[in-house]
Amino acid sequence: MSIFIPLITGFPAFKAGTEHKLGVWSMSITVAFIMAITVSLISFCVALYFFFWVKKQPSSNETIRKIGVLIHNGANTFLRREYLLLARFAGVAAILILVFLPQPIWSGSSQIENVQMALSYLFGTFLSALAGKIGITVATIANTKAAEASTVGIKPAFMAGFRGGAVMGMAVVGSTLLGVTLVFMITGDASAVLGFSFGASSLALFAKAGGGIFTKTADISADLVGKVELGIPEDDPRNPAVIADNVGDNVGDVAGMGADLFDSNVASMAAALVLAISLDKNSDIYAVMVFAYAALGLLCSAVGVLLARMGRNGGPTRALNMSTYITTALFAGTTAIATLLFFNDANGNGWRIWGAMTVGLLVGTVIGVVSDYFTNDNKPPVRYVANASKTGPAFTILSGMSYGFLSILPAMVGIGISALVAYRLCAPIDAGNSVNCGMFGIAMAAVGMLSIVGMVISNDAYGPIVDNARGLVEMGHLGEKALDTTDELDSAGNTVKAVTKGFAIGAAGLTIIALLGTFMSEVNVAAAENGLAQLTSFDLMNPTVFFGLLVGAAIPAVFSAMLMLGVDRNAQRMVAEIHRQFKTIKGLKEGKPGVSPEYDKCIDIATVGALKELIPAGLMAILSTVAVGFIGGPVAIGGFLAGNIVSGLLLALFMSNAGGLWDNSKKYIESGHHGGKGSDAHKAAVVGDTVGDPFKDTAGPSLNTQVTVVSLVASLMAELFLRFNIFG
Amino acid sequence: MSIFIPLITGFPAFKAGTEHKLGVWSMSITVAFIMAITVSLISFCVALYFFFWVKKQPSSNETIRKIGVLIHNGANTFLRREYLLLARFAGVAAILILVFLPQPIWSGSSQIENVQMALSYLFGTFLSALAGKIGITVATIANTKAAEASTVGIKPAFMAGFRGGAVMGMAVVGSTLLGVTLVFMITGDASAVLGFSFGASSLALFAKAGGGIFTKTADISADLVGKVELGIPEDDPRNPAVIADNVGDNVGDVAGMGADLFDSNVASMAAALVLAISLDKNSDIYAVMVFAYAALGLLCSAVGVLLARMGRNGGPTRALNMSTYITTALFAGTTAIATLLFFNDANGNGWRIWGAMTVGLLVGTVIGVVSDYFTNDNKPPVRYVANASKTGPAFTILSGMSYGFLSILPAMVGIGISALVAYRLCAPIDAGNSVNCGMFGIAMAAVGMLSIVGMVISNDAYGPIVDNARGLVEMGHLGEKALDTTDELDSAGNTVKAVTKGFAIGAAGLTIIALLGTFMSEVNVAAAENGLAQLTSFDLMNPTVFFGLLVGAAIPAVFSAMLMLGVDRNAQRMVAEIHRQFKTIKGLKEGKPGVSPEYDKCIDIATVGALKELIPAGLMAILSTVAVGFIGGPVAIGGFLAGNIVSGLLLALFMSNAGGLWDNSKKYIESGHHGGKGSDAHKAAVVGDTVGDPFKDTAGPSLNTQVTVVSLVASLMAELFLRFNIFG
Repeated sequence: MSIFIPLITGFPAFKAGTEHKLGVWSMSITVAFIMAITVSLISFCVALYFFFWVKKQPSSNETIRKIGVLIHNGANTFLRREYLLLARFAGVAAILILVFLPQPIWSGSSQIENVQMALSYLFGTFLSALAGKIGITVATIANTKAAEASTVGIKPAFMAGFRGGAVMGMAVVGSTLLGVTLVFMITGDASAVLGFSFGASSLALFAKAGGGIFTKTADISADLVGKVELGIPEDDPRNPAVIADNVGDNVGDVAGMGADLFDSNVASMAAALVLAISLDKNSDIYAVMVFAYAALGLLCSAVGVLLARMGRNGGPTRALNMSTYITTALFAGTTAIATLLFFNDANGNGWRIWGAMTVGLLVGTVIGVVSDYFTNDNKPPVRYVANASKTGPAFTILSGMSYGFLSILPAMVGIGISALVAYRLCAPIDAGNSVNCGMFGIAMAAVGMLSIVGMVISNDAYGPIVDNARGLVEMGHLGEKALDTTDELDSAGNTVKAVTKGFAIGAAGLTIIALLGTFMSEVNVAAAENGLAQLTSFDLMNPTVFFGLLVGAAIPAVFSAMLMLGVDRNAQRMVAEIHRQFKTIKGLKEGKPGVSPEYDKCIDIATVGALKELIPAGLMAILSTVAVGFIGGPVAIGGFLAGNIVSGLLLALFMSNAGGLWDNSKKYIESGHHGGKGSDAHKAAVVGDTVGDPFKDTAGPSLNTQVTVVSLVASLMAELFLRFNIFG
Repeated sequence: MSIFIPLITGFPAFKAGTEHKLGVWSMSITVAFIMAITVSLISFCVALYFFFWVKKQPSSNETIRKIGVLIHNGANTFLRREYLLLARFAGVAAILILVFLPQPIWSGSSQIENVQMALSYLFGTFLSALAGKIGITVATIANTKAAEASTVGIKPAFMAGFRGGAVMGMAVVGSTLLGVTLVFMITGDASAVLGFSFGASSLALFAKAGGGIFTKTADISADLVGKVELGIPEDDPRNPAVIADNVGDNVGDVAGMGADLFDSNVASMAAALVLAISLDKNSDIYAVMVFAYAALGLLCSAVGVLLARMGRNGGPTRALNMSTYITTALFAGTTAIATLLFFNDANGNGWRIWGAMTVGLLVGTVIGVVSDYFTNDNKPPVRYVANASKTGPAFTILSGMSYGFLSILPAMVGIGISALVAYRLCAPIDAGNSVNCGMFGIAMAAVGMLSIVGMVISNDAYGPIVDNARGLVEMGHLGEKALDTTDELDSAGNTVKAVTKGFAIGAAGLTIIALLGTFMSEVNVAAAENGLAQLTSFDLMNPTVFFGLLVGAAIPAVFSAMLMLGVDRNAQRMVAEIHRQFKTIKGLKEGKPGVSPEYDKCIDIATVGALKELIPAGLMAILSTVAVGFIGGPVAIGGFLAGNIVSGLLLALFMSNAGGLWDNSKKYIESGHHGGKGSDAHKAAVVGDTVGDPFKDTAGPSLNTQVTVVSLVASLMAELFLRFNIFG
């Protein structure tokens, strides 16, 4: 608590209304920087502790070790090739940024800003890639440890899986906080944080798309030939695609997801910081609060992660949820204390901002609960779809899609209400000039929702690790008991995943609403510098805004379509390859000892296909933003971003929830209902699951990132759009 | 031409800037009224001529006559029960309108307005119902005539189908023009036209939903048991659902579609009229132009319909398209002449409005062409999906959905650009006060797009008639040649349908953008009367607008889900009934002579189910508008309507195009590709078609109406929302 004390004296602007210049750092923000850096170092220590803890868990089984190495190598090969491709992309992007952003280097007086922006961008891509790399490294160790531990009991297996995931969680959120702090501290420029955020997001966009295409190509192909055509179990070692499937879990769900949440987290901080600075040019109190709350969130996540274990009663789901609840409660409590001690004033402004943040946290939970309702096999929707599957796959699809559509409403209403409440809470704050603090409230709601992201990532990364462990248990023939154990762990992962996904989408929703405010703020900074009129609204009655709205709304649909077609094309290639292997490799189908399939061929197809398909969709989203901006100017972009947010949220919620629902309907039937495995209902449910796979693991989760990237491109290019456009 | 002459002298306001009072009708608008009424009477004559022409076509085959009677009775029974239900609904709605709209009857000074509104509403519902009834009556005669004629040759069969459809086309558009003219002429109040439009739309909403659920329940069930399980041909008389399927074509595609286009057409005129009046309170020139162009559109459609016939070369598709092109060209030409002679002034204002209208016509065609690309079996998308079906139904669904998503972009961009261009064309018009004419330009683009709606409906209604004829040929055993003939006619119907559907969605898109302007105009009229501040924008940076945007965007998804679940539930009931009949009726499956299924049981299930499911979805849409309005006031409604438009367009385009694509992929495979009928690819394609059925014939086309209804509810309740709300 002692590090807080200097803050009290460090808030003249807030407490007494005196002014001090930004850039020459005040006492209070200096303390906030130190605190943020300290907390991120703490989280790295926790990550390291878990890493070595996982590493020293016993591993003795030779088969498992061998398969583990195959998965490890496959994942690293893909990651290396993906990063090589993305490095070239990032290089080109950095040069473009250097030359053009925030304004053409020849026109502006401040070339230093261009250099800062380009370097921040590269730093963002680097940290994002690093997060993915760390995640993969530990996940491909933890999977074998969890598999081995499952022969001993569920508790040690759970711990291996969870702590493996927590390495990722702590490392990602630690680097977010460290990165944002360093960039802001060194440049003193919130726009550079936008550049940093764009680096993180653009890498995440491609990593998520590439990983998502890889994993679903392998998953679908393995299921289609293995489960449907040949009737062999999931993860059967005879299946040539089975290693690729396990590699996919790592590159898609671990590395891709890590990059994704790194991106959301950075974007929410970037939006909040830009708005914080624009509110009051003479005070850094709002920026201090952003750093303080984010640091507290990470600290609470670290505590929650450290405390997580399976109790005597209650399964792994309970353990995961308990640690989430503990983190949430701790965060609400500690931030309340911090607000009371340091941020409050006579007008209760501190409480208003705290309230906005808590609204975010609350609505995040509500969205999670809704996602759970639509995807949990104890609830009516999954049961209904499982039952409809008896009449054939068309009904599986129709009813699943219908519930997916229904699931949109509560989340959209929740995001709408939380934005409204957060805005209204903060709008009355008088920041000393005429700027409205409402948008900052929305940004803080997003920060609140993402405060416990360290916990969310830990839970999320746990999923693919135990999924992998299940595969290893099957392939290593570790026996029925171990298989039951890993099945239970896997199922918990699926349940928790639905909730965290709802959380991630909700947070992205609020972040990008705040980014709309950021965009307007950037436009107005540029307008002031260029002596142009200030933009005060994006009016829906302006047909240029409406034009942007319509085009913006179409982009997420096209983006999803491109990714799904990528999976579709790629899976067809892999299915052909699996057929070839079963035809030409003698004894493979019969499981003759010593005969094993050519796993690497399948990994290679997934890799090459994913690398080919990952660029176009993301580039389409970026280029259409640029096109709309140069055609319609900032006004069209305002509409474009709103349309993009609305349709992105709609499709992301629909796809994630429908996908999760189909997955669990299939599992529900497999657990013996409606005829169980091999029945007609099961076959129909497998069709649903196959359709749902790219929904929930490729297109759906990439949409968050797509919308964020587009928002950041818009903010970064605000000045260019303002100065050069045809119809604006 | 002579009726135009007085117009020249009747335009003092436009030509010389003098003022004259609205309500006391000017010479010019009196002439416009007379012209509109004359043209609608002409169209009724054309409809009557076709009706008697169809009726006197030969019919001698006893089997066909019998089955025709079954279909006729089934359709009329459903329609009677549906209308009985809707009459009660309309009664309640009329009382509510009487009491509350445009303002509570006890608070306002003008109770006469409430009475006018309620009566206009009832008149709208009555005409809409009448349009459906006329359509059904002639379609259930024309189907037997076309079936019989197909034994003679394709030309007489085409004429029977087309002229049957044209009765509907002429009657619907004639009653639109007559109804709007009478309501406006008698009340002198554009708001009463909104009430009339709401009557038409609310009835259309339920009729479309009810008919859509009926037809797809029967279609899916018949296909699923007949084609998939038993492998008997489509329209096999042994199938208990086969008559219900044919009844469905009539109540869904003929009556429902008629009500739908009646509604779009009325709404576009209502929006244009309200804006026309608001532009210049002292002149009726803009209203005159609305009536004049609409009347010319109907006149040209009548000519196009009368000229339509199959030439020596070229099939039915060419004949349908040729008459559409002739109508379009005639319309563009005659309106240009009218503009030149009567509506132009020194500033070229007349040409600006004409230009806006022509842009609408042009973009409508573009959207049609895009729809055609995505659903035509000569184009890559259908081929790709057919090929993907070889790998199983999951790929049929995934690739079809992807193309459905892709198809959104060109249409959305097209609608956005046409709105932008129409706005910019008309914005410079100086109406003599400060009101911006841009929104009126958008309304006129919608009027332009819908000008040839008489032709569109004729083409659209042709489809189900020849579809029915095909069924009758099969059931009446009229031979292979007749079957080939009706197959060719049916296929032309499907191709043309995709194009006209694109047209209908585009027109609805522009209409509802204009209705957003109408809503604001209504709010401001009310604000002026209540001494409140004028509303000048719906700003996306206002979180109340954004809240509305998010909720509004979720509604079409929920609406679609409710309809699809309705079809899903209902079809499961009917499948069970078909199974029961095949099990308990001896000799049915074997086709023993004298044994026939209990057709009426299936008709009854479809009827009861549709009646049960049709109310909740529409009511949900209406009530959520009311809820958002009372919570967030007019500002939230502005966002709500925009969100509703965007997501409604997105889903409508996606569903219509994906559905059409799956349908044609199946047909493509059935025509002998990828293994033809009975192959695995065919089975997969049937799954796609079944999913697509409620997409393209239940949910997709109902979305237009849903969005229109919501917009009209908003405009009608504008004053209530303004005066009573919580957060506005």
